[in-house]
Amino acid sequence: MTDVTTPLPVDATTRIRRESERQVTERAALHAVLDEALVAHVGVVRDGLPLVLPFACARDGDTLLLHGSTGSGLMRLAAGEPVCVTVTHLDGLVYARTTFDSSMRYRSAVVHGTAEVVPPEEKERALTVLSDHLFCDRTAEVRASTVKELAATMVLRVSLERASVKVAAGPPEVDPDDVEPRSVWAGILPLSTVAGEPQPSPDVRDGVDVPPSVRRAADRLNAGGAPAPAR
Amino acid sequence: MTDVTTPLPVDATTRIRRESERQVTERAALHAVLDEALVAHVGVVRDGLPLVLPFACARDGDTLLLHGSTGSGLMRLAAGEPVCVTVTHLDGLVYARTTFDSSMRYRSAVVHGTAEVVPPEEKERALTVLSDHLFCDRTAEVRASTVKELAATMVLRVSLERASVKVAAGPPEVDPDDVEPRSVWAGILPLSTVAGEPQPSPDVRDGVDVPPSVRRAADRLNAGGAPAPAR
Repeated sequence: MTDVTTPLPVDATTRIRRESERQVTERAALHAVLDEALVAHVGVVRDGLPLVLPFACARDGDTLLLHGSTGSGLMRLAAGEPVCVTVTHLDGLVYARTTFDSSMRYRSAVVHGTAEVVPPEEKERALTVLSDHLFCDRTAEVRASTVKELAATMVLRVSLERASVKVAAGPPEVDPDDVEPRSVWAGILPLSTVAGEPQPSPDVRDGVDVPPSVRRAADRLNAGGAPAPAR
Repeated sequence: MTDVTTPLPVDATTRIRRESERQVTERAALHAVLDEALVAHVGVVRDGLPLVLPFACARDGDTLLLHGSTGSGLMRLAAGEPVCVTVTHLDGLVYARTTFDSSMRYRSAVVHGTAEVVPPEEKERALTVLSDHLFCDRTAEVRASTVKELAATMVLRVSLERASVKVAAGPPEVDPDDVEPRSVWAGILPLSTVAGEPQPSPDVRDGVDVPPSVRRAADRLNAGGAPAPAR
């Protein structure tokens, strides 16, 4: 396991070329971005062409787990192959005083690695990590997965050894040639993902309350924090 | 220009293999997913390996515009090359009564094409389309871009001819073997992206109000609709 105090590597693959001052090399920053993510965009090369699809994800120590079905084309395609897994949180629209300087606040993580199939004997634990991240410890509220269900599920994992993190969090840039900037409004419109009211299925029996896992997921999102505990 | 009533093609590249009943082939559905997006994940092949990075995006008729700097490695890398551009909106967490059946509500669009550099004579218009989409008609509130600014900006465009759309919007799946499902809660935790209060830069002069473009961006997001007008 990689020590969390070991900085992320900056090499030909992971070096951020554009706005390099925004590159963050603390592994804890990588973990924070990933722990707030429910979905990652996974890129693979298929027949020489790029393919990018969204997958549910959860960090498990120094690997990232990706969840899919054995029927998923990309899961099978990615197994054993190089992947690039990217997570982006859009935190705000940056209104500068010019179109040129207008931008976005965001945090992104880009992981480069090989997608390994989680072997059968580790699959149940990996699915628990995924479910507990995505659904805030839901596994304690439902029955265990069956052998058949486990067999129909595929989990991939990617090492977090080689990754880059970029954080754009500053104020709007100011055009140095602008002689009268202060009369035009500039600022940030903050964006965030929030949860609404839980919607029970029509077949839920009267008196069955919204469970703690759903409340936790809503509370964590609406508090502006990560949707699941850091691991 | 492709007629909006022409269905999206379903071929070896664009056919959705997993949960194929969720594939939507109406071009209007593709436009709706893209028009709600501020960021797209762009995949390219670099030295035989996949690379996925987030880019600001805006639909312009039957193309998708991607915005970057001439200093951006991926912009230069992608120019003239095959790309896969993916947009995902996460609409909810689907709490089923088993870990296996739990899932997510989402809408995703996957565009396959070649990234073309928007030529200099079309760049200003393309940047206006981008800015007016991302910042809700901000261009009317700020000065025009200078020649130098235009030269430092790169816009790529990708045809929307070949794309797939997947919409997962249903209720939690019910395990047919479950003898007593109704005593366990199942349902949806809806998720959405919202805007907070605009935060003016400290140098904005007293009496300069939050402009209409910022109000529009906030209102459209918070009304649950697209952040920008459909084009």
